[in-house]
Amino acid sequence: MADDRFHVYDTTLRDGAQQEGLNLTVVDKLSIARHLDGLGVGFIEGGWPGANPKDTEFFRRARTELDLKHAQLAAFGATRRAGMKAADDPLVAALRESGAPVVTLVAKSHDRHVELALRTTLDENLAMIRDTVSHLRAEGQRVFLDAEHFFDGYKSNPAYALEVVRTAAEAGADVIALCDTNGGMLPDELAEVVLAATGTSARVGIHCHDDTGCAVANTLAAVRAGATHVQGCANGYGERSGNANLFTVVANLQLKRGFDLVPQESLADMTRIAHAITEVTNVTPNSHQPYVGVSAFAHKAGLHASAIKVDPNLYQHIDPAQVGNDMRMLVSDMAGRASVELKGRELGYELNAVESRELVDRVKELESRGYTFEAADASFELLLKDTLGGRRRHFTVESWRTIVERLPTGEVVSEATVKLHAKGERIVATGEGNGPVNALDRAVRMALEKLYPELAKLALTDFKVRILEGHQGTDAITRVLITSSDGAGEWATVGVGENLIQASWQALEEAVTYGLLRAGREPD
Amino acid sequence: MADDRFHVYDTTLRDGAQQEGLNLTVVDKLSIARHLDGLGVGFIEGGWPGANPKDTEFFRRARTELDLKHAQLAAFGATRRAGMKAADDPLVAALRESGAPVVTLVAKSHDRHVELALRTTLDENLAMIRDTVSHLRAEGQRVFLDAEHFFDGYKSNPAYALEVVRTAAEAGADVIALCDTNGGMLPDELAEVVLAATGTSARVGIHCHDDTGCAVANTLAAVRAGATHVQGCANGYGERSGNANLFTVVANLQLKRGFDLVPQESLADMTRIAHAITEVTNVTPNSHQPYVGVSAFAHKAGLHASAIKVDPNLYQHIDPAQVGNDMRMLVSDMAGRASVELKGRELGYELNAVESRELVDRVKELESRGYTFEAADASFELLLKDTLGGRRRHFTVESWRTIVERLPTGEVVSEATVKLHAKGERIVATGEGNGPVNALDRAVRMALEKLYPELAKLALTDFKVRILEGHQGTDAITRVLITSSDGAGEWATVGVGENLIQASWQALEEAVTYGLLRAGREPD
Repeated sequence: MADDRFHVYDTTLRDGAQQEGLNLTVVDKLSIARHLDGLGVGFIEGGWPGANPKDTEFFRRARTELDLKHAQLAAFGATRRAGMKAADDPLVAALRESGAPVVTLVAKSHDRHVELALRTTLDENLAMIRDTVSHLRAEGQRVFLDAEHFFDGYKSNPAYALEVVRTAAEAGADVIALCDTNGGMLPDELAEVVLAATGTSARVGIHCHDDTGCAVANTLAAVRAGATHVQGCANGYGERSGNANLFTVVANLQLKRGFDLVPQESLADMTRIAHAITEVTNVTPNSHQPYVGVSAFAHKAGLHASAIKVDPNLYQHIDPAQVGNDMRMLVSDMAGRASVELKGRELGYELNAVESRELVDRVKELESRGYTFEAADASFELLLKDTLGGRRRHFTVESWRTIVERLPTGEVVSEATVKLHAKGERIVATGEGNGPVNALDRAVRMALEKLYPELAKLALTDFKVRILEGHQGTDAITRVLITSSDGAGEWATVGVGENLIQASWQALEEAVTYGLLRAGREPD
Repeated sequence: MADDRFHVYDTTLRDGAQQEGLNLTVVDKLSIARHLDGLGVGFIEGGWPGANPKDTEFFRRARTELDLKHAQLAAFGATRRAGMKAADDPLVAALRESGAPVVTLVAKSHDRHVELALRTTLDENLAMIRDTVSHLRAEGQRVFLDAEHFFDGYKSNPAYALEVVRTAAEAGADVIALCDTNGGMLPDELAEVVLAATGTSARVGIHCHDDTGCAVANTLAAVRAGATHVQGCANGYGERSGNANLFTVVANLQLKRGFDLVPQESLADMTRIAHAITEVTNVTPNSHQPYVGVSAFAHKAGLHASAIKVDPNLYQHIDPAQVGNDMRMLVSDMAGRASVELKGRELGYELNAVESRELVDRVKELESRGYTFEAADASFELLLKDTLGGRRRHFTVESWRTIVERLPTGEVVSEATVKLHAKGERIVATGEGNGPVNALDRAVRMALEKLYPELAKLALTDFKVRILEGHQGTDAITRVLITSSDGAGEWATVGVGENLIQASWQALEEAVTYGLLRAGREPD
């Protein structure tokens, strides 16, 4: 569980989700939480139960579906409303009932915000903080406080801003996170204010936004000034210019400042985790992202290749393997041999040097064409089987066709016909569905169900589409990720093509093949 | 001409062009130089004449085609080669003959790089610097020196790194720009090294890369330590994680540190200039870019919206108009009436209380069904028009049908047929495409192009698909976001349905409708 010497606190699921264009379902949030836990962060802020029904559901499902190894969940919420008892406020109750071991309360620390936004008195705001912190502490939860607009508040009324810190600390808050909510601070000035806020019984934390392009540096400056709790978001997600990029912060502190924040082997998985999260958020990864971007260690031609051979460290600020990234001299590829070997081992295959090199080459070639295996384990395993011994097929395709039609009545109908060969038979089957892919899915399962009755249990549970920009004048290509289930487990497959349906078919074909292998069906 | 008190030095055309995927023609470079001059930077590094034929041509054409108001051009190049006289080195001659008033010489300042990459002695490297600087000075050019790998060099051999600075200053270099070439520095340590390098007759400059996410903060830290010459690139372009973003650096220094770097009215044009440059580079603009990104002043939280109406400055770190940007309200499931009203005002509609309440109710109802308007401004505006007065239609749909077929040859073909009614006509048209949505898009535009020739300019530029989990036992639904362009601007529309194609059709229909409204076409 969380190491309490220094807090790495992620707020992707709450503040990161404020990013324009980011919309997370409950399942997305659960999946991101698992990735963050895999990285080894100490705290994961899950959302605002009570205020947002989706977040209430997240905490409910998290109790049974999340098995966190490192992280503790934090529920975010406001202090009690003015003129109400904390115990009576239904929003406070929702925090209590979230089941989260930690509650992070947001409180105003800027006098003008108290008066203009909260519309209450400065004293009542302090009472709201005191009551809510004490109440939740008494009920057995650990309480952190996000002091909103702290830096602007300090400029406006330093005595009041510090009084907020003191009040929360005295009421029993463990952490007072100073928030640069509007993101306008620069490191030197920020550090001075952080220093002024230390000295209570509570730990000082820092929460920065990137409006001046200094969120990471501001976070580091705060740590230097005494903060031992850093907040940030995966991939720098967040409103406006984003929150402090938690991955950059952790890598800087651990690799350049000697902090021991996450396990070394998790840090070496950071690049994969960063990209896996982009698959969930469906936000195009930032290729320039420090440490984990595909370009972060990419060198354009013109560099002294011989000098790089003599000592690559002359041309890179860290060994990219420390964060699971690679130096690249050319465009494309994410996978290194080590990660492919690791992945193979994870799936139960021991690859020799020749096999793993061949697999890396195939992965790189496919990734350059738009495939991704981060989020498509089943496709990766099929590729691995291909590499090891030539994958045989359960069935082959003669042709397929799908029709979607909007009738003059307004009704929309979809059907698909597939012509397959399996076990020496030619099979023609037609399926209807609520879309072309669903219809194809039903058609292929109808075609094969007589030969493989276990396909009746198979269901397509998720379907994601991403349009990838064309390279060097080629057309854009479509990438489809399909998640399938047989009731006992889930697996994901990937397809890529110019045509959405073609890409979907490819992912579907692999999904069915993988489902049959899971059921113990060896191909003919 | 350039104000010499403090140098704003742009290297987009040289170091920025090292970015993966960035390829600039001579015309592109001339165009970017004009934009940068419009912003009021002091120096524009044009490239490496002699080493790169394109750059030689750039300087040749710049003499007659560029009429710079603020900026001076700088030619970039290396010191003379080992064992040669500066006057005899053809690469030095190319710098002389470039016609640029300033030459920026790159020189090694890291002992190991001298030995391993340059393969010469430490003394000969100093002689190369001394000779080349003196020679170019004697020929009448102003000389700046880029001390490459300075910070890593200082760590390896501080005496030698400082000797490079001294040698160049004594030979007549005006500026010694300290380069964090590998980008690994953090601000505190960097500032100490900068301080150590001050005290010669030359001005100290700073050149940072963003490998730790601190390029901007490092630049500011160097200025605090005494640097009065900052280098950077438009939009943070550059190799790996990019160079220091010159726009962010200038805005921070001018708006938050009181420097007078560019004319106030040019700063107010920065957002436009940043985007104009992305049009030239053809790099997707970073919507999160500090100050100038489209999201930089975009607010999502409904929590904030009511207080924003009271005083917008409570929620933004600067007035966005200072950099030519705008506050924007995003409509999302956290939105309340205040943010809908603000959004309406942004689009030029004044909503009364009844209208805005009705609109909020419709937005909430649609969002509960899976719609999102935060990333679909055009659909929001159409919804707003509906609410205000009943939207009329440019066309109505009788039916459509799309077929995707994988032939026995393996080829995949897509076609779509639409039957529409517009201006009293019934129109049937068929389109082919590289997928069902592309085929539908072509079919609908083919059907309407005779009546609305401006549709020929319309293009679907992005297409995103999300499968949303079903609620309360209902089926999963598909959400499609389509971005369209007419060359002059872009707009986004949303469609939702159980069927992917149906959802796409809805977004497509709104995209075409919005495009027609943009073109000034009122519905019948």
